[in-house]
Amino acid sequence: MVDMAEKDEEEVKERSADELFKDFKEVSITEFFRKNKAHLGYSGKQRSLTTVVHELVTNALDACEEAGILPEVEVALKQVGPEHYRFTCKDNGPGIPEEHVSGVFGQMLAGTKFHRHVQLRGQQGIGVAGVTMFSQMTTGKPMRILTSTGSGKVNDIKLMVDVSKNKADIIESNIITQKWRGTEIEGELKGVAFTLGERSPYEYIRRTAIANPHAKITFTDPEGRKSVFDRTSKIIPRPPGEMKPHPRGMDTDELLNLAKKSSARRVSSFLESEFSRISKAKADEIQAKVNFDLKKNPRKMTWAEAEEITKAFAEVDFMAPPVEGLRPIGEEQVDKAVLKILKPEFSSVLTRNPTVYGGGVPFQVEVAIAYGGSAGRSGGEEGGSKAEVMRFANRTPLLFDAGGCAITQAVNTVEWKRYDVKDFENSPVTVFINLVSVYIPYTSAGKQSVSAEDEIVKEIRMALMDVGRKFHRYHSRMRRDIEREARMHTLMKYSAELAASVAKLTKGDEKKLTKSLQTLIAKKLHIEYKALDAEGGK
Amino acid sequence: MVDMAEKDEEEVKERSADELFKDFKEVSITEFFRKNKAHLGYSGKQRSLTTVVHELVTNALDACEEAGILPEVEVALKQVGPEHYRFTCKDNGPGIPEEHVSGVFGQMLAGTKFHRHVQLRGQQGIGVAGVTMFSQMTTGKPMRILTSTGSGKVNDIKLMVDVSKNKADIIESNIITQKWRGTEIEGELKGVAFTLGERSPYEYIRRTAIANPHAKITFTDPEGRKSVFDRTSKIIPRPPGEMKPHPRGMDTDELLNLAKKSSARRVSSFLESEFSRISKAKADEIQAKVNFDLKKNPRKMTWAEAEEITKAFAEVDFMAPPVEGLRPIGEEQVDKAVLKILKPEFSSVLTRNPTVYGGGVPFQVEVAIAYGGSAGRSGGEEGGSKAEVMRFANRTPLLFDAGGCAITQAVNTVEWKRYDVKDFENSPVTVFINLVSVYIPYTSAGKQSVSAEDEIVKEIRMALMDVGRKFHRYHSRMRRDIEREARMHTLMKYSAELAASVAKLTKGDEKKLTKSLQTLIAKKLHIEYKALDAEGGK
Repeated sequence: MVDMAEKDEEEVKERSADELFKDFKEVSITEFFRKNKAHLGYSGKQRSLTTVVHELVTNALDACEEAGILPEVEVALKQVGPEHYRFTCKDNGPGIPEEHVSGVFGQMLAGTKFHRHVQLRGQQGIGVAGVTMFSQMTTGKPMRILTSTGSGKVNDIKLMVDVSKNKADIIESNIITQKWRGTEIEGELKGVAFTLGERSPYEYIRRTAIANPHAKITFTDPEGRKSVFDRTSKIIPRPPGEMKPHPRGMDTDELLNLAKKSSARRVSSFLESEFSRISKAKADEIQAKVNFDLKKNPRKMTWAEAEEITKAFAEVDFMAPPVEGLRPIGEEQVDKAVLKILKPEFSSVLTRNPTVYGGGVPFQVEVAIAYGGSAGRSGGEEGGSKAEVMRFANRTPLLFDAGGCAITQAVNTVEWKRYDVKDFENSPVTVFINLVSVYIPYTSAGKQSVSAEDEIVKEIRMALMDVGRKFHRYHSRMRRDIEREARMHTLMKYSAELAASVAKLTKGDEKKLTKSLQTLIAKKLHIEYKALDAEGGK
Repeated sequence: MVDMAEKDEEEVKERSADELFKDFKEVSITEFFRKNKAHLGYSGKQRSLTTVVHELVTNALDACEEAGILPEVEVALKQVGPEHYRFTCKDNGPGIPEEHVSGVFGQMLAGTKFHRHVQLRGQQGIGVAGVTMFSQMTTGKPMRILTSTGSGKVNDIKLMVDVSKNKADIIESNIITQKWRGTEIEGELKGVAFTLGERSPYEYIRRTAIANPHAKITFTDPEGRKSVFDRTSKIIPRPPGEMKPHPRGMDTDELLNLAKKSSARRVSSFLESEFSRISKAKADEIQAKVNFDLKKNPRKMTWAEAEEITKAFAEVDFMAPPVEGLRPIGEEQVDKAVLKILKPEFSSVLTRNPTVYGGGVPFQVEVAIAYGGSAGRSGGEEGGSKAEVMRFANRTPLLFDAGGCAITQAVNTVEWKRYDVKDFENSPVTVFINLVSVYIPYTSAGKQSVSAEDEIVKEIRMALMDVGRKFHRYHSRMRRDIEREARMHTLMKYSAELAASVAKLTKGDEKKLTKSLQTLIAKKLHIEYKALDAEGGK
């Protein structure tokens, strides 16, 4: 046996490092994602189609909102062959300047969003270029983009991605004279399938409409069915503002990175100008905790010095990040949307105050819980309802990869039994969660699952416990009312019997007796319940 | 209300496209992953540390095996402060030529693995550069690499990543005169935590040892505990060979991509030389199905023509991909490893034949099931065992993101009840699955979850059902044996009573009577069982 092994060992000829490294090459980011298209959400016929719709709709909404325009988005899918579809997405956004069309649609890791601390749906500069890539990978055809900034000229551009160079390849470019403003994208896909269901393009758009009551979205599906999700609010959300990072949770690397880019002359002024919630007084507090002079040039700060500052950050009390930079949907809007679609027996909505996760990134959560009515989803045991968790990040529905998501984790850590939801999984409950942040820490480029940062899980959990308590109160009140009614009912029954017996004995009027007995009971119980309610709180 | 809304609407000033696009920028891949480090598995203190160990160990093993060297890998973690660790990883691999050290450790999307159809653990050219990035992000310090190809010169290099350029930044470079061959990597990490448990560096290395019986791995943990996982096999796996893509499942885009790179003069010779299992005869079959002459220059093939070929591929029968290119662990080795660590009552191992998933990528699965003994993991109901699923891809343990993984999905679709595992989740079962392929379709750059390609889920499911049936037979035999023993026991008991009564009546010898009665019963049952076994098969 040993001989055999040694023989085998000898048979394998060793190869030198030089031989092994002769194929050393660099690849472009597009080549990488072409080979790993599952990272972008292109896996499976159904998910791939939903991913395309997701990328197009998020871009359209971002564009409109950044420009301060009430969004109107029209999406259409048309089947042109087996597993072969044509898509169009048209918006009334600001349009794209001609010189940037290539960058937006034909280049990955390029865009306006990555560098800024602004709450947007897109943040990576990969999404739409990914659509171009997936479209050409499956059909060999270019995307067509019609776009105009309202100048009277419409650019009509067909482009593909040059995969090895990560650059757009312009196939055709024309100018049409027309007074119009917006962007329309057209393309084809193969190897995809349209279905209805929980993870379909329709559901994606329906949920988008729920979380974006100010947007009008029209969706025409391959069967020709047209769904118009009209806006329920004309209040256009304030365009997202740039938010400075918050000192809490700031890490040394990022601090140095910011310091290098700063034009401030002193570390102290750098801190005051580049961070949220650092006043002159706070800078003085920090100075007292570090062993170097904050008059120093921030670009010359060493790692050790920066580390002293981040340590000081942890010891100083700062105000929570300001609410202005973040744009939750708002309790009123969420409640309206939830009531409209679910018509629940009970609902409760909560928006928590902004806070910060690792790296000083401000975020905020809003949650809603709906019980009864059309809440939950069908498919539970014995034909009943199952709990439904609707996840959103910056108002974008997350339909896939629920497993590892911070939102799912938070929902699972809540002890629902304590809030009178005995079997959460099999209850007619819809839990709605929207995570709002200038940067959502997704677990992958496909952006369907949020990384389980402690602070995020904790905030969501707190919010859920809060609405859980409200449900608990509602539910126990409801249960109490049912019990009271049952008691009243029993007493009333006895009162009739009692009245009959008394009437027989006293020859009195049975009806009159019954009535006065019942009035007496009602009065007594009413006083008793009132006292109980006062005692027990509401 | 409407007035209010319109007022709000007016307050939002529209911004022009030019204004919005003034910040349009490109970012480097390293900048992207710096901001999205969770994509690479750097999320949470514990997972981050395991990710570093994972990247180092997979690289070391790949290097050794590619060079045909029996791997010896030493990993050590040392705590140097609160949440602050130093790591080293030393291998006896082929070393790295000096001019490639920068590329390997300081540049993402660069490497020797991405372009080739070779079964390796690494495949993206991101992993180790990610370690450099994470190390410098948390400590501000460079990685140190000692490497030699055995020339008598050892390169001692300290480097960091220039994040905005995605290039290495050499901090220090020295040459030591020493006769040694291999690579040793040293670095520091902050904000990480060492723990024991199911997702710890120790468990990662233990599972790596199970799936790599030819490797010797030594791990020293921060408490100074040294674990030596000695090799149980001296048979060095054949170095992975380059595998040609298989025509089945090939897509048009990839076919054209290969055609463009080919130096063949005709499409027919391109197909014969660049694909696995396309013979002259098969090429003729394809010619009969397409409407253009395969004598055409492959570099001039159009999308429509390439599509005709991929359609023809789907209609022609090809042999399955050859087994030589793929390197499963092997049934014997898996069985040995499983028996050694789990000492189960029952185990069964199966390696399926290679097949293909989308894009013509060959793959193969091997599975094992172990029941009883130390199989399963603790923490089940009432202190019992829970089912344990050990996922591997190319012998690399997958410890995270089990939720969306093809392997988990396959395990969940098996109706375990049919195989006598009544409550799978709460049974003392370990299911071991290794997916072997020249390219594993991971769902994200963190490489912990396999995309649920239909063909992959199906193959794993088939393999599990096969070992499930074997367990079923074992388990029913065991149950039958228990029943038989009980029956025998009952009969024996009666035989003693019967003998006593008969002895009283006949004044015979009770002991003798008992003995002969029992011999008779045993004989009868033995014949009966034998007949039953012959009938029912084994």
